[in-house]
Amino acid sequence: MKSLRTVLACSALAFAVVPVGAFAEEAGDNAQIIDEGLNRSQIQQMAHELVDDIGPRLTNSTNMRKAEAWAVAKMKELGLENVRKEGFEFGRGWEVISSNVEMMGPRPLELTAIPVAWTPGTEGPVEGEVIVAPISSPGQFEAYRGKLEGKIVLISRPGTGNEPSQVTFRRLEDDDISSRDLIAIPQHNPDGPGGFARFVNSIKTFPKQLDEFLASEGAIAWAKISYRDAKLLHGTGYNHEVGNTQTLPGVEIAAEDYRRLARLAIGGEAPRLRVDTRVRFIDGDTKSYNIIGEIRGTDPRAGYVMAGAHIDSWHGADGAVDNASGVVTALEAARIIKTLGKRPKRTIRIALWGAEEQGLYGSLAYVRQHIVERAGEEGLSNAELLANWSTLYPVTPKPGFYDMKAYFNMDNGSGKFRGIHAEENIGAIPMLEKWMKPFNGLGAKHVVAGATGGTDHIMFQAVGLPGFQFIQDPLDYGSRLHHTNADTFDHLRPDDLRQASVVMAGMLLAAANDKDTLPREPLPQKPTNTNPFGQ
Amino acid sequence: MKSLRTVLACSALAFAVVPVGAFAEEAGDNAQIIDEGLNRSQIQQMAHELVDDIGPRLTNSTNMRKAEAWAVAKMKELGLENVRKEGFEFGRGWEVISSNVEMMGPRPLELTAIPVAWTPGTEGPVEGEVIVAPISSPGQFEAYRGKLEGKIVLISRPGTGNEPSQVTFRRLEDDDISSRDLIAIPQHNPDGPGGFARFVNSIKTFPKQLDEFLASEGAIAWAKISYRDAKLLHGTGYNHEVGNTQTLPGVEIAAEDYRRLARLAIGGEAPRLRVDTRVRFIDGDTKSYNIIGEIRGTDPRAGYVMAGAHIDSWHGADGAVDNASGVVTALEAARIIKTLGKRPKRTIRIALWGAEEQGLYGSLAYVRQHIVERAGEEGLSNAELLANWSTLYPVTPKPGFYDMKAYFNMDNGSGKFRGIHAEENIGAIPMLEKWMKPFNGLGAKHVVAGATGGTDHIMFQAVGLPGFQFIQDPLDYGSRLHHTNADTFDHLRPDDLRQASVVMAGMLLAAANDKDTLPREPLPQKPTNTNPFGQ
Repeated sequence: MKSLRTVLACSALAFAVVPVGAFAEEAGDNAQIIDEGLNRSQIQQMAHELVDDIGPRLTNSTNMRKAEAWAVAKMKELGLENVRKEGFEFGRGWEVISSNVEMMGPRPLELTAIPVAWTPGTEGPVEGEVIVAPISSPGQFEAYRGKLEGKIVLISRPGTGNEPSQVTFRRLEDDDISSRDLIAIPQHNPDGPGGFARFVNSIKTFPKQLDEFLASEGAIAWAKISYRDAKLLHGTGYNHEVGNTQTLPGVEIAAEDYRRLARLAIGGEAPRLRVDTRVRFIDGDTKSYNIIGEIRGTDPRAGYVMAGAHIDSWHGADGAVDNASGVVTALEAARIIKTLGKRPKRTIRIALWGAEEQGLYGSLAYVRQHIVERAGEEGLSNAELLANWSTLYPVTPKPGFYDMKAYFNMDNGSGKFRGIHAEENIGAIPMLEKWMKPFNGLGAKHVVAGATGGTDHIMFQAVGLPGFQFIQDPLDYGSRLHHTNADTFDHLRPDDLRQASVVMAGMLLAAANDKDTLPREPLPQKPTNTNPFGQ
Repeated sequence: MKSLRTVLACSALAFAVVPVGAFAEEAGDNAQIIDEGLNRSQIQQMAHELVDDIGPRLTNSTNMRKAEAWAVAKMKELGLENVRKEGFEFGRGWEVISSNVEMMGPRPLELTAIPVAWTPGTEGPVEGEVIVAPISSPGQFEAYRGKLEGKIVLISRPGTGNEPSQVTFRRLEDDDISSRDLIAIPQHNPDGPGGFARFVNSIKTFPKQLDEFLASEGAIAWAKISYRDAKLLHGTGYNHEVGNTQTLPGVEIAAEDYRRLARLAIGGEAPRLRVDTRVRFIDGDTKSYNIIGEIRGTDPRAGYVMAGAHIDSWHGADGAVDNASGVVTALEAARIIKTLGKRPKRTIRIALWGAEEQGLYGSLAYVRQHIVERAGEEGLSNAELLANWSTLYPVTPKPGFYDMKAYFNMDNGSGKFRGIHAEENIGAIPMLEKWMKPFNGLGAKHVVAGATGGTDHIMFQAVGLPGFQFIQDPLDYGSRLHHTNADTFDHLRPDDLRQASVVMAGMLLAAANDKDTLPREPLPQKPTNTNPFGQ
């Protein structure tokens, strides 16, 4: 905190000497934003409410409904206008009631495990021997036919302990950031050469085929290995659509426990497991929701600028750094602007996306509802739309296409902002640099040309709109928190989040008041070869 | 493996050209040892039996008894002679049957927790509110008097998420090792200025006082925080003596879960927990055992050299890198020597220590049984002896004192040997260097003057005997495995262990056959200020 305070003092001094006219007003805005955001932040209180009090927010779960209600109430409390929920079809809700997985023999042992999302529970103890049957494609089914009756099937390859050679908690050096800059490639397509189609197949189509095979063979449950070592769990699963959930209970087992089962099974007597998982499906409302609120602009024809973050999470822990951090940063940015009584020229919109974790469905829905129409999208599910993304042309703008002037996304943990990706929109770089300049002293100073993938801004970039993602200090997001059972409030870094909220507020206000708007890329009308997921 | 094989080929070539006379025989020994240890290793099979089949080996638990029987049988199978168990008084056996800790409100959540060793179970579900009462000394009892009735007491300070800035899995650079060398200080005392006394107080005396206070106040259970983040657990506890076990159930809760409880309790409605832990105390045999076996030397008056490792472990996982790795390395070293039919001049003894984790009690017992007698030790418990170590003079040698010529200890994970600590026995350096030289090409080449603490070799150094600990590549031993619930077979590195077994075999044989013996330090006769625990 001390270094931030020092920066603040220096900035305030500089502003007091230099400003004249419009620049003076802007400089005054930024000094106020920094003061409000660093000294009277509500970040921690909001995070405590969302993360500790509500907890995990798997799409359409009971907790997610609580979080939606919390977000609506919070936006209203902050004085945002036009607060609303915008629904889109998603599927079933699901949540864990209890989970116990034990090895009964050859020696008794309680295992560390978590139910896989949207698989049924055993709803009472079931017992069976394990069989090691790593299956990664339908072509492998034949090898196991007739061998799975009554078994608990270990569907992953066990492997051995990993050797992570990176630092667990890490901040970026300035050199790290500039070296990430990539050659610009105009015109986006977040699918690239079939990327989304492969993604949908791997997370949804093949798991469903495997489930049907295992069930038809009389297996009683299946287990996969955690993809992180040292007892971390995730529980990610994607078959959430009505009529598409799996029939067999599935659990993810901690890597150490899974590998022990596999070694014992291969080395001698197959371990016998008792699995007792209880889950709840919720089918009353199959829609997921984006939560939207605004600070209305003074010029109704000037369009809007937007900041957003997904509010849903996985169920292993409390969804703190993924992505309550983004939610509270965006809300705090809005609070700062409202508290200071700023009236921007353009409307500032805050969007909290639903169902990001299952396929960026919230931002996809927003794009469909407000931005563009794609040929042939009518009647397609979210997954089908994603899988066929590269084939759905032409793309036709809706009126809202012209209203949206900028989108800023946050979804990479709780590390402070170090800059922003121009997402290959080279023409945007000078304006992004200008808007970020007042916050260079807080550590946010790099505008890099390259693109990032994997979260909601790509849905905007993909249709030519200026959507960007911030560069954040990585901290321990990738090493141990992303989607894990350790993603809790105590891993949020409040100093970092305060800085992020200040930068976000400043950039939103600058984008909302700038006499110019950001350049757009051409609306894509045919497939291209770029693939942000692959980078 | 490839690099080791290359080294092997080169070494064999060198030996084929140079050797004459006694040196030729020695060089031939080492080439055979390398070949046998790298190409026909039994390390993995032995580790699988001890780690996967038997599992955790808390002192005097059922599994520890199985491990003792396994070790005796294995030594006999390897052809060791004079195989025996040497008992010493320890206390009660204890093991976990099952453990469930749930938060019932303000929202339901299953917590990650482990019973603290040698505390009773709840033996059925008990429910109560938590209270945050971090107590670290008896002086703090008064502040909580009258507030703990019916409560589950959170006795640790919660803190916040850590920021580990080290690499998780790490090998040493040669420079790292040479820079660890310390200034030599003659004459050891592992206590130093009251070090053992403070240690015993912190792990045993104060926990017992706290337990008595909590029980007298009507608390129903207590919980402490895990000292590692990201869902790792340990469960260490030290009150194992008959008549000294605690009266209240104690659990260690994962850091993330513990801190959430504390935040919720401080922020509003105190969480209500349901604790259901079932444990078993075993009181039939209160002795722990060292397991000893030998390759008898050809000269009965030449004394013996010894390698050792503790075979007990904590109960969170399977005690793989702490310390089955040391056990199987020592057994494999003996197997290599036996298989090659070597008949050393001095006896080679293998010692697998019991009860290391509770205070180095196995090696302490060996020293008392075979090496020296300390004034006033009669009738003292292990803990009392440790706590009063620096006051018990004079130290009188037993006949066995003169028989023991060298002791090599392994207890730092599964990383390969990079050298050895001379433990401030400067006079020993040239001989250690000579014995290690044939294995320099395998990466074991540093003899450093400095001392290490914390494990069984210090009991020998402390009475002036030449006891040493190897320098090992740290890997992920300290970062995530030491005493944790992730210490499983899959984190053993077989290439490293094969190298270690080769180096240990070679050094044992060299020490057993050398015409000279290692210099000894003077038998300590009064307290000094050195403290290996503090280094």
